[in-house]
Amino acid sequence: MDTQAIKELLGKVKEGSLDVDEAIAQLRWLPYDDLGFAKIDSHRNIRRGFPEVVFAQGKTVDQVAKIAQRMLESNNNLLITRASQEVYDAVREIEPTAEYNELGRTIAVRKIRREVTDGGLVLVVTGGTADIPVAEEAAVTAGIMGNRVERLYDVGVAGLHRLLGNKDKLFEASVIIVVAGMEGALASVVGGMVDKPVIAVPTSVGYGASFNGIAALLTMLNSCASGVSVVNIDNGFGAGYSAALINRLTRKEE
Amino acid sequence: MDTQAIKELLGKVKEGSLDVDEAIAQLRWLPYDDLGFAKIDSHRNIRRGFPEVVFAQGKTVDQVAKIAQRMLESNNNLLITRASQEVYDAVREIEPTAEYNELGRTIAVRKIRREVTDGGLVLVVTGGTADIPVAEEAAVTAGIMGNRVERLYDVGVAGLHRLLGNKDKLFEASVIIVVAGMEGALASVVGGMVDKPVIAVPTSVGYGASFNGIAALLTMLNSCASGVSVVNIDNGFGAGYSAALINRLTRKEE
Amino acid sequence: MDTQAIKELLGKVKEGSLDVDEAIAQLRWLPYDDLGFAKIDSHRNIRRGFPEVVFAQGKTVDQVAKIAQRMLESNNNLLITRASQEVYDAVREIEPTAEYNELGRTIAVRKIRREVTDGGLVLVVTGGTADIPVAEEAAVTAGIMGNRVERLYDVGVAGLHRLLGNKDKLFEASVIIVVAGMEGALASVVGGMVDKPVIAVPTSVGYGASFNGIAALLTMLNSCASGVSVVNIDNGFGAGYSAALINRLTRKEE
Amino acid sequence: MDTQAIKELLGKVKEGSLDVDEAIAQLRWLPYDDLGFAKIDSHRNIRRGFPEVVFAQGKTVDQVAKIAQRMLESNNNLLITRASQEVYDAVREIEPTAEYNELGRTIAVRKIRREVTDGGLVLVVTGGTADIPVAEEAAVTAGIMGNRVERLYDVGVAGLHRLLGNKDKLFEASVIIVVAGMEGALASVVGGMVDKPVIAVPTSVGYGASFNGIAALLTMLNSCASGVSVVNIDNGFGAGYSAALINRLTRKEE
Amino acid sequence: MDTQAIKELLGKVKEGSLDVDEAIAQLRWLPYDDLGFAKIDSHRNIRRGFPEVVFAQGKTVDQVAKIAQRMLESNNNLLITRASQEVYDAVREIEPTAEYNELGRTIAVRKIRREVTDGGLVLVVTGGTADIPVAEEAAVTAGIMGNRVERLYDVGVAGLHRLLGNKDKLFEASVIIVVAGMEGALASVVGGMVDKPVIAVPTSVGYGASFNGIAALLTMLNSCASGVSVVNIDNGFGAGYSAALINRLTRKEE
Amino acid sequence: MDTQAIKELLGKVKEGSLDVDEAIAQLRWLPYDDLGFAKIDSHRNIRRGFPEVVFAQGKTVDQVAKIAQRMLESNNNLLITRASQEVYDAVREIEPTAEYNELGRTIAVRKIRREVTDGGLVLVVTGGTADIPVAEEAAVTAGIMGNRVERLYDVGVAGLHRLLGNKDKLFEASVIIVVAGMEGALASVVGGMVDKPVIAVPTSVGYGASFNGIAALLTMLNSCASGVSVVNIDNGFGAGYSAALINRLTRKEE
Amino acid sequence: MDTQAIKELLGKVKEGSLDVDEAIAQLRWLPYDDLGFAKIDSHRNIRRGFPEVVFAQGKTVDQVAKIAQRMLESNNNLLITRASQEVYDAVREIEPTAEYNELGRTIAVRKIRREVTDGGLVLVVTGGTADIPVAEEAAVTAGIMGNRVERLYDVGVAGLHRLLGNKDKLFEASVIIVVAGMEGALASVVGGMVDKPVIAVPTSVGYGASFNGIAALLTMLNSCASGVSVVNIDNGFGAGYSAALINRLTRKEE
Amino acid sequence: MDTQAIKELLGKVKEGSLDVDEAIAQLRWLPYDDLGFAKIDSHRNIRRGFPEVVFAQGKTVDQVAKIAQRMLESNNNLLITRASQEVYDAVREIEPTAEYNELGRTIAVRKIRREVTDGGLVLVVTGGTADIPVAEEAAVTAGIMGNRVERLYDVGVAGLHRLLGNKDKLFEASVIIVVAGMEGALASVVGGMVDKPVIAVPTSVGYGASFNGIAALLTMLNSCASGVSVVNIDNGFGAGYSAALINRLTRKEE
Repeated sequence: MDTQAIKELLGKVKEGSLDVDEAIAQLRWLPYDDLGFAKIDSHRNIRRGFPEVVFAQGKTVDQVAKIAQRMLESNNNLLITRASQEVYDAVREIEPTAEYNELGRTIAVRKIRREVTDGGLVLVVTGGTADIPVAEEAAVTAGIMGNRVERLYDVGVAGLHRLLGNKDKLFEASVIIVVAGMEGALASVVGGMVDKPVIAVPTSVGYGASFNGIAALLTMLNSCASGVSVVNIDNGFGAGYSAALINRLTRKEE
Repeated sequence: MDTQAIKELLGKVKEGSLDVDEAIAQLRWLPYDDLGFAKIDSHRNIRRGFPEVVFAQGKTVDQVAKIAQRMLESNNNLLITRASQEVYDAVREIEPTAEYNELGRTIAVRKIRREVTDGGLVLVVTGGTADIPVAEEAAVTAGIMGNRVERLYDVGVAGLHRLLGNKDKLFEASVIIVVAGMEGALASVVGGMVDKPVIAVPTSVGYGASFNGIAALLTMLNSCASGVSVVNIDNGFGAGYSAALINRLTRKEE
Repeated sequence: MDTQAIKELLGKVKEGSLDVDEAIAQLRWLPYDDLGFAKIDSHRNIRRGFPEVVFAQGKTVDQVAKIAQRMLESNNNLLITRASQEVYDAVREIEPTAEYNELGRTIAVRKIRREVTDGGLVLVVTGGTADIPVAEEAAVTAGIMGNRVERLYDVGVAGLHRLLGNKDKLFEASVIIVVAGMEGALASVVGGMVDKPVIAVPTSVGYGASFNGIAALLTMLNSCASGVSVVNIDNGFGAGYSAALINRLTRKEE
Repeated sequence: MDTQAIKELLGKVKEGSLDVDEAIAQLRWLPYDDLGFAKIDSHRNIRRGFPEVVFAQGKTVDQVAKIAQRMLESNNNLLITRASQEVYDAVREIEPTAEYNELGRTIAVRKIRREVTDGGLVLVVTGGTADIPVAEEAAVTAGIMGNRVERLYDVGVAGLHRLLGNKDKLFEASVIIVVAGMEGALASVVGGMVDKPVIAVPTSVGYGASFNGIAALLTMLNSCASGVSVVNIDNGFGAGYSAALINRLTRKEE
Repeated sequence: MDTQAIKELLGKVKEGSLDVDEAIAQLRWLPYDDLGFAKIDSHRNIRRGFPEVVFAQGKTVDQVAKIAQRMLESNNNLLITRASQEVYDAVREIEPTAEYNELGRTIAVRKIRREVTDGGLVLVVTGGTADIPVAEEAAVTAGIMGNRVERLYDVGVAGLHRLLGNKDKLFEASVIIVVAGMEGALASVVGGMVDKPVIAVPTSVGYGASFNGIAALLTMLNSCASGVSVVNIDNGFGAGYSAALINRLTRKEE
Repeated sequence: MDTQAIKELLGKVKEGSLDVDEAIAQLRWLPYDDLGFAKIDSHRNIRRGFPEVVFAQGKTVDQVAKIAQRMLESNNNLLITRASQEVYDAVREIEPTAEYNELGRTIAVRKIRREVTDGGLVLVVTGGTADIPVAEEAAVTAGIMGNRVERLYDVGVAGLHRLLGNKDKLFEASVIIVVAGMEGALASVVGGMVDKPVIAVPTSVGYGASFNGIAALLTMLNSCASGVSVVNIDNGFGAGYSAALINRLTRKEE
Repeated sequence: MDTQAIKELLGKVKEGSLDVDEAIAQLRWLPYDDLGFAKIDSHRNIRRGFPEVVFAQGKTVDQVAKIAQRMLESNNNLLITRASQEVYDAVREIEPTAEYNELGRTIAVRKIRREVTDGGLVLVVTGGTADIPVAEEAAVTAGIMGNRVERLYDVGVAGLHRLLGNKDKLFEASVIIVVAGMEGALASVVGGMVDKPVIAVPTSVGYGASFNGIAALLTMLNSCASGVSVVNIDNGFGAGYSAALINRLTRKEE
Repeated sequence: MDTQAIKELLGKVKEGSLDVDEAIAQLRWLPYDDLGFAKIDSHRNIRRGFPEVVFAQGKTVDQVAKIAQRMLESNNNLLITRASQEVYDAVREIEPTAEYNELGRTIAVRKIRREVTDGGLVLVVTGGTADIPVAEEAAVTAGIMGNRVERLYDVGVAGLHRLLGNKDKLFEASVIIVVAGMEGALASVVGGMVDKPVIAVPTSVGYGASFNGIAALLTMLNSCASGVSVVNIDNGFGAGYSAALINRLTRKEE
């Protein structure tokens, strides 16, 4: 973060040439950390205990490591998604407490461990076993953002009794993430059973006319059940993040 | 039909220069009725009481009428699909007993009324009300081909209890036609519940990312339930025809 | 609703052969109203003051009218979407208090007028003037489901100051619906500014390579801002419904 | 399978609080085996000698092995599709009698060897040599499900006499699986020759505008011959399964 | 044609500053007739008796009429494709001998009637009755370009015997135009039977997954039979023109 | 424009609490005119004599008229694109000097008539006659923005000499707009001939596999000639606007 | 080839029960060589010195070798396309005179060396250097089929003078194969310059919106120049084969 | 270059049979250097200090090296794009001063170092860190063509303050290249802020429904901001080249 800019701003507040509300408004937009190849958007996540998030794909190991190092200086939680084992090795050098979720390919550093006592349940459901990596990305994201998370895996519509046998869990959740590939029909079926928001994540699981997830994506966008919204193919992180934003609304103190 | 060709062929059989089996084999391939703009494939349908079928779309009213007239000379049943009211008016001129199914846009002439006592049940299921026209085309097709047909409409997955409340009907059928638009998830759900062949018909019902039935088509092709095969979008006729071919296998006498 | 089935069920409860919890569980799945061409899913919406919703597109005026009539017998609120003027005329015959939103093509019957005092704000934002019909569908849906709704129209990214000049409104909302066609970039920009869930609705507004909304749909699915989920092209109803499900979580009493 | 649940259910039957029909109905929906990462749908296949089927693609070798092990405890036949040599090695450890079809990439365990004396013939036809792997998957699937299966390979339409020279075989079959890539025209030609159901399988064989099987898929969906239904690209298993369901209808005893 | 430019050019030849070969070479590239909204490419068609061709679609009636008038001044044959009845009425005003082919929507003016004694046969084949309009456009084009043309309509692969019964005609042709919609398999089947060049024309005949001719187009591009090349969907003119260029090679005198 | 906001801002400048540079910076972002259904972005175009531009498509006649009226109060030039005759009638009521370009469907009001003496030439080229409407939209746009514009129509690559015969014009231009449908090859050919920026506009002219302009769009995006950039299908306005921005760089005084 | 079948047929001719013409007709359809995994279509190519052709892609090295061995027994020329170095090594074992074209990935065995004195010229043209492999496949195919072939490489439209500088060669050819990737405009430009048939081959050369050759394919299908027909992406063989069929028509003796 | 041709041409000028202007005109079209596999378009780039440009992708290392060697004989600057390290090694052998930009994969040889004092600024902007390779290709291209270039990386719309904090830089530039993947919204936002031409480059950065850059491409083509034109996905070179052509117009001396 550009400390010089902040110093000047605070100087103005101190000398009375800038009033407090205006200073806050300016801080909302001003700060970012400029590494040249990356401008870290440091101000948004500081609020409310959300972690910093780095999308590792498309960045070199070295770039991710440098970004992570700078971010960890803020003593905030850190989440790195789409991280290879190699990235994890580099991050562990910097921060030995970093945890790696191999299936979900996430790296998490928890500097602030929030109590997760209030607020609703985020339930992550998958159609099949092969959808689990995407589901884990969602579950880890929602978890590190301070939510109670449970998993219900391999309950696809080909054997509907597996889903019907878990109705209680579905009814308990505040927000449900449905992760499914192939034809992705699970989102519609779950959406038709509950009266809570459903975030649907199509996965690239399948072959042939699944077109790497397009089939599931279209299924979910056309869901005949109301209350289903959709994120990008394989975007477990996005679903977890949206679910966390939604579930936070259930917290009484906020 | 080219009667001259047949006369010659039969002449050869009579005089012994062609034996009976060979004559039959030749008849399998030889005959068609040449109207210039159309070559009526008259031999296939003669067998086993199947009706003649005319696809009216893309033909002029006059062309359909001429084809129908020629076909009716064979005293066989006749089915015309994708027929407008205007086509029906022209056909009724020729054959006053012709029946029009307005929703399914089919014209049927029943010269041979088969008993439909044995053989399994063909069940036609739809996801919604808007899918009914395609379903009717399927039901009429299977019906005129001599099958017992029942309808179960508007049991889409958004309200799963409507389907679960009709499990007995699903279990009774020999072959099930599932007609659904939007996300088309119904085919997978039905396929997962029964152990009979399911013919799935995607419909162009929907909007936006349904892409005139592509979404439902992909859903059905990627069905995670086994035993589901698919026909073209809005192809109720094709589904009814396939179901009839399948259901005929249940007839003990054949 | 199948009163015979309910009568039997209640009889069992009365005579003690069915306990109360089980009866409730059965009621959750059992009831629907069978009109032949439609099976009205009457039980879901009864709960919590949600209106009955009918999607008019693809149904005949007569079918919609019959469904509306049956639904109104339950004395619940009613919402009809994608309704033409002709449908409205038919519904007004049945229910003179029905209101028509011409832009959004919605018909609303408000039998229960809920107070909308608590709960967060649903903000509906559009990129341009041509997106307003879809936005109205969303706003009416969220409104009849008991939410406080505000509109902020024509603030697309081509003139960013129009959006930046309304930051306070964006920060006030609990959930934001972003309706945009053409390139649909507004969803990402709004998503990057707020820390509340954003429901993005691509519209078919545009021409050429907008491909009837595909461009905006892809933009929104690939949003680089977190917390954005997407519904079908032009699906204002779906966005309004999801927003209502989310916003209900802010109500303290629930 | 959740033996505790079954024990309780049977206890109720024994003590008369649940009658037999209801117990059967409940068993239809209840049982599945929960491995955490997979919920094995054990009840469906037990009936009628169908094998358990595992789709290996997208699962780890270890996951497949664990699922196979659990399934084999039921003493039923087992079929694993899309299985690599590595998967086969792991399964052979558990079950030395497992057979591997290298071309079709299937693993079969035959604990129950059914007589295949009655019922019709399932004929598997390919357009070219490169389509054989998909055809083998179909043939193995139909075979292990208790069907008489024959193969007719490399009879594509570029040399029509190869097909016409095998008309007798085509006429003998009860159901025909047509496997073809490139332009996939074989399905239409076969469909036009026979009056039995045809299951068409597009393959990803081809290049350029074959688009990994889309060309063949569209060809088959648009077949001008009636009685052709289609499964997903390269989905030999699905075709074999559908064919088996259809062919079972020919068995007199059922 | 820009007579001033030609006058100057010829002047140079006369005065010896330009030699004859060079003048010819310049004439090859120079001349066109500038109407402002259209630059008529007058030089190409003058050679060898080819007609002038105007593509009427996308032009106003008035524009087509003006172009036709100018072209007819050259006393050459004229072909107008994609012409409505309205265009025909305007052209007949200018040239009473103009002939209209209603099915093919072509207008032909034959000022030079070539003998068509030598050269091979161009055979135009269709899969169905609905493909005839496109076939007529091809037949008229090849005909006015001085070729012997025959038609063989409605011999699609659903009834293969109709095609096999016309093998002699197929073997007689020098070049075959195959016009087919739906799955377009006819091109492959014909291509596999003959050893002459086949020009395949996909048509937009069909529905659903025919995608207005894409299915047939892909089928034809992926033809497993060698010697098949393809033109645009519904492009009967292009096929007729290509066939004429090919067939001209058979003329002994050229 | 929100005069209250501007009054306050100017008040601050007057009283010295806001310095002039800051006031200018704020004015850059602040002003827009709020009509409820539209927020007119009035500040951008005021600069440098650019006209106000309204995209009429998707707006009601009444909305366009209201926006036009408000804009004309600023005494600036006005351009309305995609305007029907009906819109023109409404605008002419408000401003009798409005000019309508029927082909290009543009309405222009010229309150400030700029001299167009310096600056380079914008040349608008089309492949065919049917591309002229899009070209006119481009030409009118560049013209009203104060550029010297010339047209060169119907010089597509099928008759290359028409283009080669106009090389001098191509070499004279500062920026060239190439408008072409069908295969759109003209952009590459022109781009290969000149060393000035080329703006390519694909049009929806064509049929079949032109897919409403996708073919031309892809051609232009893949141009093997350097210096070609592309705008949306049929987006004559966008090309004219970009060309004007580019051509302004040639003006010596700016 | 099924010698038993041929023996019987010839027996019938000998004993007079089958006349000669009929025997010839039967031979046209009957023979193929059955290797189990492949049915070699041996009769077509025997005629007129055309080589046997094997498409190696998708077949194992062993399968190709076995097919090649059987084919070479007929003492005919042999062409193998899409052949890797590994395939070549296997074939050279069987036939040491086999020649490998590394760029075109073709293997040729010339047992019959035809004189190539009469007949027209097949000219193979490419847009760029990267298109050469596909062009070589075309050139080798046309060459081994007995045609005079010349190459003109890297004359794409970005530098039009390279093409214009070779007009004489273009005018000399009887049939021209245009091979081009990226935007594929060369086919239209060449098609507009000559009055001979043009076979266009789109290649997968390019990136981004070339979509592996789709852009070039669409360009070529939409060619505004008449006389251009198209084969599959990268299908050099198909173009060479079609060109050979066309060019054979120029031979006076046939 | 064909020196014989040039020699003859100059001889004619010398002897007075060709005047100077005509000679220049001929030279514009005549020269290219024929390497057989490549025809080097040497004349265009000679003018005005533009470098020779070689697109390395799809060419062998040896081909690139040979082309580079021949081009360097002209003592002009050289730019090779899409160059691997291996290509660089080969070029460095020939020309030790060659510089390699690893990220942008460009090789540059600067024989003429132009002063870059006048002319406007080309600003290269990226949405994210992963877009930098494409941006570097653009920056190097514009730079070697003699432009002042600055970079502004990682200012995507998810954190809009990063862009707004650099408004001064945006306002300073004469032409802006916007490089962005995922949803590519940055182009619209930048386009809405400035009144200079914007060249948008979609990148293949992203996953799922980004479809390798299609999402960003469509976003940019549909930009609601005027003045944005687009090049192919990942085409940094094309953007840099177009920007250079545009920026050259700002040079007072030209």
